[in-house]
Amino acid sequence: MPTPLHQHISKILNNDPAFSEEISSSFRRLKVKKKTVLLSEGDPCRYIYFVERGCLRLYFTKDNGTQQTTQFALENWWLSDYTAFNAQTTAQFAIETVEQSEVLCIDSQGLEKLFADHPAFEKYFRLVHQRASAAAQNRIRFLYELTREEMYTNFITKYPDFCQRIPQYLLASFLGITPEYLSEIRRKATKPA
Amino acid sequence: MPTPLHQHISKILNNDPAFSEEISSSFRRLKVKKKTVLLSEGDPCRYIYFVERGCLRLYFTKDNGTQQTTQFALENWWLSDYTAFNAQTTAQFAIETVEQSEVLCIDSQGLEKLFADHPAFEKYFRLVHQRASAAAQNRIRFLYELTREEMYTNFITKYPDFCQRIPQYLLASFLGITPEYLSEIRRKATKPA
Repeated sequence: MPTPLHQHISKILNNDPAFSEEISSSFRRLKVKKKTVLLSEGDPCRYIYFVERGCLRLYFTKDNGTQQTTQFALENWWLSDYTAFNAQTTAQFAIETVEQSEVLCIDSQGLEKLFADHPAFEKYFRLVHQRASAAAQNRIRFLYELTREEMYTNFITKYPDFCQRIPQYLLASFLGITPEYLSEIRRKATKPA
Repeated sequence: MPTPLHQHISKILNNDPAFSEEISSSFRRLKVKKKTVLLSEGDPCRYIYFVERGCLRLYFTKDNGTQQTTQFALENWWLSDYTAFNAQTTAQFAIETVEQSEVLCIDSQGLEKLFADHPAFEKYFRLVHQRASAAAQNRIRFLYELTREEMYTNFITKYPDFCQRIPQYLLASFLGITPEYLSEIRRKATKPA
């Protein structure tokens, strides 16, 4: 049965890749409970993760000790601390599961071997990162353009199911507001006109 | 003589690519004056640009009519409105030269042909976008973590030469502050302790 990764590769490359089996064996599958820390700030960043089921978050710890979530990764998303993973240095971000999750992970060496052995996988990853570049440009625009309230409205409009899945304090952290202010925005948003 | 693009490819791929000539002929070189608009909001986004000399900026027009710069591209940087370029739709961002510049440009079809003909170019672009993903994660972190004043200090520490090159009103726009407030921060920063 094709795994979520195979399906995603086929979808992105618009083909039926013949290398599914070899690719699969290069990854390690982890079944992890909710709130499992996969990467800690200051630890070597060895892996890049592909979410088969569940949700991860990327965050850093602020000077005042609170955690700031900057990114979520749902099904079919890749996630790592890319600066640390690319340079094989220590992480400046942490990664934790938001829900019980199944993720595939691979280290830099394994990934490079896949690129060397399968040019189509190189193409797939180029397209994944090309889409990530587009998403980042829009994300940065929203951070300049939208008020916190507009960011919330934008977020629930684009990702209504996701907003049901994640705890409200994490959504508030991602939006850069207090949970109390998020409750206030939500009350206003659901109030009949 | 190797062009800046050849040198950049060789540096990123850590090799001496044999395909330099074929790659060159696929690009169009533009010599453009300062403040030339290469892409307007609402126009089809046909090209991706590589900066050989000079500087580009990516911006959008806010509801109040002011331009918000969200990204600069210096020598050896690639730039496009990636959402529009990837989907071949109309641009939601504009691109303008900040200085007199020499840029290479290529359309989506030309780029796809280069990927099909030269697997090494696919690898190069995967690495370019992988670095861009890392830069975007850090950029988003700074937007959450740093005050405008800290963003300025961070920016001049990382890119001192660049800050000398760009007009102060563009730097202010990029930092999301007024030119007056930027002058105030600069005065404080240069004041002897």
